[in-house]
Amino acid sequence: MTTWDNAQRLRESRKRAGALYARGKRVEKKDATALLEAVIQPGDRVCLEGDNQKQADLLAVALAAVNKEKIHDLHMVQSGVVLPEHLDLFELGIAKRLDYAYSGPQSQRIAKLLFGGKIELGAVHTYLELFARYYVDLTPQVALIAAVSADREGNLYTGPNTEDTPAIVEATAFKDGIVIAQVNEIVDKLPRVDIPGDWVDFVIESGKPFYVEPLFTRDPGAITETQILTAMLAIKGIYAPYGVQRLNHGIGFNTAAIELLLPTYAERLGLKGKIASHWALNPHPTLIPAIESGWVKQVHSFGSEVGMDDYIRARPDVFFTGPDGSLRSNRAFSQVAGLYACDMFIGSTLQIDLQGNSSTVTADRVAGFGGAPNMGSDARGRRHPSQPWLQAGKEADPDSPAALRRGRKLVVQIGETFGDKNVPLFVEHLDALKLATKLDLDLAPVMVYGDDVTHIVTEEGIANLLLCRNNDEREHAIRGVAGYTNVGRGRDKKLVQQLRERGVIRRPEDLGIDPLDADRRLLAARSIKDLVRWSGDLYAPPSKFRNW
Amino acid sequence: MTTWDNAQRLRESRKRAGALYARGKRVEKKDATALLEAVIQPGDRVCLEGDNQKQADLLAVALAAVNKEKIHDLHMVQSGVVLPEHLDLFELGIAKRLDYAYSGPQSQRIAKLLFGGKIELGAVHTYLELFARYYVDLTPQVALIAAVSADREGNLYTGPNTEDTPAIVEATAFKDGIVIAQVNEIVDKLPRVDIPGDWVDFVIESGKPFYVEPLFTRDPGAITETQILTAMLAIKGIYAPYGVQRLNHGIGFNTAAIELLLPTYAERLGLKGKIASHWALNPHPTLIPAIESGWVKQVHSFGSEVGMDDYIRARPDVFFTGPDGSLRSNRAFSQVAGLYACDMFIGSTLQIDLQGNSSTVTADRVAGFGGAPNMGSDARGRRHPSQPWLQAGKEADPDSPAALRRGRKLVVQIGETFGDKNVPLFVEHLDALKLATKLDLDLAPVMVYGDDVTHIVTEEGIANLLLCRNNDEREHAIRGVAGYTNVGRGRDKKLVQQLRERGVIRRPEDLGIDPLDADRRLLAARSIKDLVRWSGDLYAPPSKFRNW
Repeated sequence: MTTWDNAQRLRESRKRAGALYARGKRVEKKDATALLEAVIQPGDRVCLEGDNQKQADLLAVALAAVNKEKIHDLHMVQSGVVLPEHLDLFELGIAKRLDYAYSGPQSQRIAKLLFGGKIELGAVHTYLELFARYYVDLTPQVALIAAVSADREGNLYTGPNTEDTPAIVEATAFKDGIVIAQVNEIVDKLPRVDIPGDWVDFVIESGKPFYVEPLFTRDPGAITETQILTAMLAIKGIYAPYGVQRLNHGIGFNTAAIELLLPTYAERLGLKGKIASHWALNPHPTLIPAIESGWVKQVHSFGSEVGMDDYIRARPDVFFTGPDGSLRSNRAFSQVAGLYACDMFIGSTLQIDLQGNSSTVTADRVAGFGGAPNMGSDARGRRHPSQPWLQAGKEADPDSPAALRRGRKLVVQIGETFGDKNVPLFVEHLDALKLATKLDLDLAPVMVYGDDVTHIVTEEGIANLLLCRNNDEREHAIRGVAGYTNVGRGRDKKLVQQLRERGVIRRPEDLGIDPLDADRRLLAARSIKDLVRWSGDLYAPPSKFRNW
Repeated sequence: MTTWDNAQRLRESRKRAGALYARGKRVEKKDATALLEAVIQPGDRVCLEGDNQKQADLLAVALAAVNKEKIHDLHMVQSGVVLPEHLDLFELGIAKRLDYAYSGPQSQRIAKLLFGGKIELGAVHTYLELFARYYVDLTPQVALIAAVSADREGNLYTGPNTEDTPAIVEATAFKDGIVIAQVNEIVDKLPRVDIPGDWVDFVIESGKPFYVEPLFTRDPGAITETQILTAMLAIKGIYAPYGVQRLNHGIGFNTAAIELLLPTYAERLGLKGKIASHWALNPHPTLIPAIESGWVKQVHSFGSEVGMDDYIRARPDVFFTGPDGSLRSNRAFSQVAGLYACDMFIGSTLQIDLQGNSSTVTADRVAGFGGAPNMGSDARGRRHPSQPWLQAGKEADPDSPAALRRGRKLVVQIGETFGDKNVPLFVEHLDALKLATKLDLDLAPVMVYGDDVTHIVTEEGIANLLLCRNNDEREHAIRGVAGYTNVGRGRDKKLVQQLRERGVIRRPEDLGIDPLDADRRLLAARSIKDLVRWSGDLYAPPSKFRNW
């Protein structure tokens, strides 16, 4: 006779085993590892919460301390591989297989473990794609998550860093998994409920805040004049002519420069109210001057940003805040917003090849993708028109009948021809290809594919790939903005000149921009301290960004 | 001095106005219209919950009864235009502008109101796209939703029809909107919490279940032998060679036939465990025999289905059920799953043109899209490989280097060459084009675009559009399976024969299928009663499907 409640019964036995360490749902911190040993079984699919921002750090440490005779061969499914413990699990043999989306600080070590065969790689995903698989073929049996506080019933308040928690918990709790939450503290009454207590099995009070990385903070003091020039080009050459109002900015100094030029340069161009009003964006500190100057109508956020919580609370008209006044972020919904409701994604990368493919993976770093592949891809399921989208579609395909011609999302790569440590941005072949060969991967880890990229902006100008009619034109449009890199020097000057005459390539002078005007004085804020002032002292930067 | 809490103050004043009709959060049914008149203001963006399944019907009636001197020019943002009241709002002048995703039963009346200028159309979306806009530029000021029960604090239990509720409520509640819920009853203790009470402002006890349409129920007794033949072709010609395990089925008899052939025809082909194991799907009654036969590992659902609740409760290993045993569906997450974690979408349509574009919109019916554009589009942000996806990518682009070649989602359109009332499935030009002209739309309402479709299946055979190398081949691949329709008769026989030799077109006999074997006896269930039997009497079909 077939039984149909195997997962439910397994869940009950896990709960009973864990209950030995619990009073109600509450487990003491010192018993965290024992709880995990009781609840988790070898070979389980475990989701350890952690993305590019928040981390369930106590639970990561506790999991890395389990007895590997008891717990081994885990299949880790998690947004970020960020903390040392995330990789210790594989070195120690506690975990074996990995499906993930992002790895920043651990990108070098993860590469070594992959090369050494210590990690069996499932795939590198974009966040929303990994969440999708939580509901189909990578559903976690155990989720280890982080929140700010819990009440006695296990209801959770995530604070402004809600982020991935709802997507993880729903998939786990409703498919008979076990949800274990670390919380900074247990309280009588929560400011608001972010996750219902029904969905949570065990709660551990950590006694201190979970770790959050201020990943989206860029010091205006470190923005170069070349970056300012690329920002001016983007604003005048892309934001303005397409009239981009709904958008997402990636991480980086180039996009931070754009944010800081809105109330100055863009204001002088008369663009206020015409561009950059509705955002899917983390609360970037460099957006403060634009907000204070009335540029920004609404921002929905993937996560919060360290130091921004009081400022957000004081600007509820702009941000999504709860009845308690604090931010409710949500990575899943913000990624959906970036995919389907934004007309532009603009971000930086480490390498761009001759077809416009780009990657942050280099030969010895497996950085992962985060949200870029989702936001930096054309959403072919989109059906609502908007001016920027229709215009981009028309440029790409002028000959099709208008009513049957879809628009295109603007996907812009922005950067200097030579990046950090003078490494060229443009390459003949992505290092990602070498990595794919070395690890025998089906796919090279490409972050944004060339056929989705619409524009590339460097200090040399803008290449509009929508206007290219074949691969050769595309290659030369790219070479034509690649400056003195080998790729740039490999250009056919005549062909590049033709592309410029057609407006496929636009130089600063073609846009009426004098590179000498790209001056730091154009930045609405020139330092972190300026940002604090703009915020009316509400922004509280983390100490590593304070030099006063 | 700039104020930053305008929305919060507006929210407070709305709440105060509504509180006149409330004790705590509770409002009597008889005061529903008065509550809405107190809370809503002219010009508001209002989300009235209702998709292709569940309906906040009491609130729809209450809204249609407001005094239009007080409440007018509303901008309705809602998944479905389904109930008569949804359109009464526009006829009465209470509402003016509409952004939506689906319209089934009202598709004719909506067309009339559009032609008559009574509705100012924003756009027709796919569900996930509309949810995305709730977070960016179409955030509701007031959401009117439906749940099964509420407790005294306003916590909501949605029952199995969770569907759109979480996506709507989160966008509204955290951007200072007002959330009003109709519930069947108010109870002391909920079976589980689906929506935290914090997020809900007013609750109205309706005293009876909200309306749910059994949209995904297909009577096996109405499946024709032609449909069985198309199902056999799909299984042997697509599911098997690609090894499709993660998938979504659209609504219709053809896909219902596939579901009913899994435990019979597909089992005999030795495909059990190799195809159709992981689903993003509503609980189709016609999937019961496959579930009972051990074919189905996991199903995540957009919504529930009338009559299936007890069966789902008894099969928790398959479905996403809560601690209380009932289904938790979620349209947003299931659409994300369909987009990013499924390798195939297969569904039917009303019209297919020579480029493979398809639409359910005809000249006098504006049906809307529902989920099809999202699931029937290639997810270009996807980065994880799978065998079906890689194989489809290779067929489409055999010459690119493998590591830089993305896979393709399988997007299959299935139908008979002549559909209901002998109307041809294939047309030279979609009626959607006429509609676009008539309504002066930027885009014709195309459901699935030809460049996303990979296969078309009819009783004449399978056209594999991945293998077509130019528009002419694509057109003839389509003509080649279009039977005796005008489109089919317009074929160049020699070209079609060449395509068949290359395997672009495959006839039943090419697949070793004898059309005479397409017999109703192949169906695992031949009636609704058979389905009830398969379910061990757990499936309780709605009375309109009972003839015993």
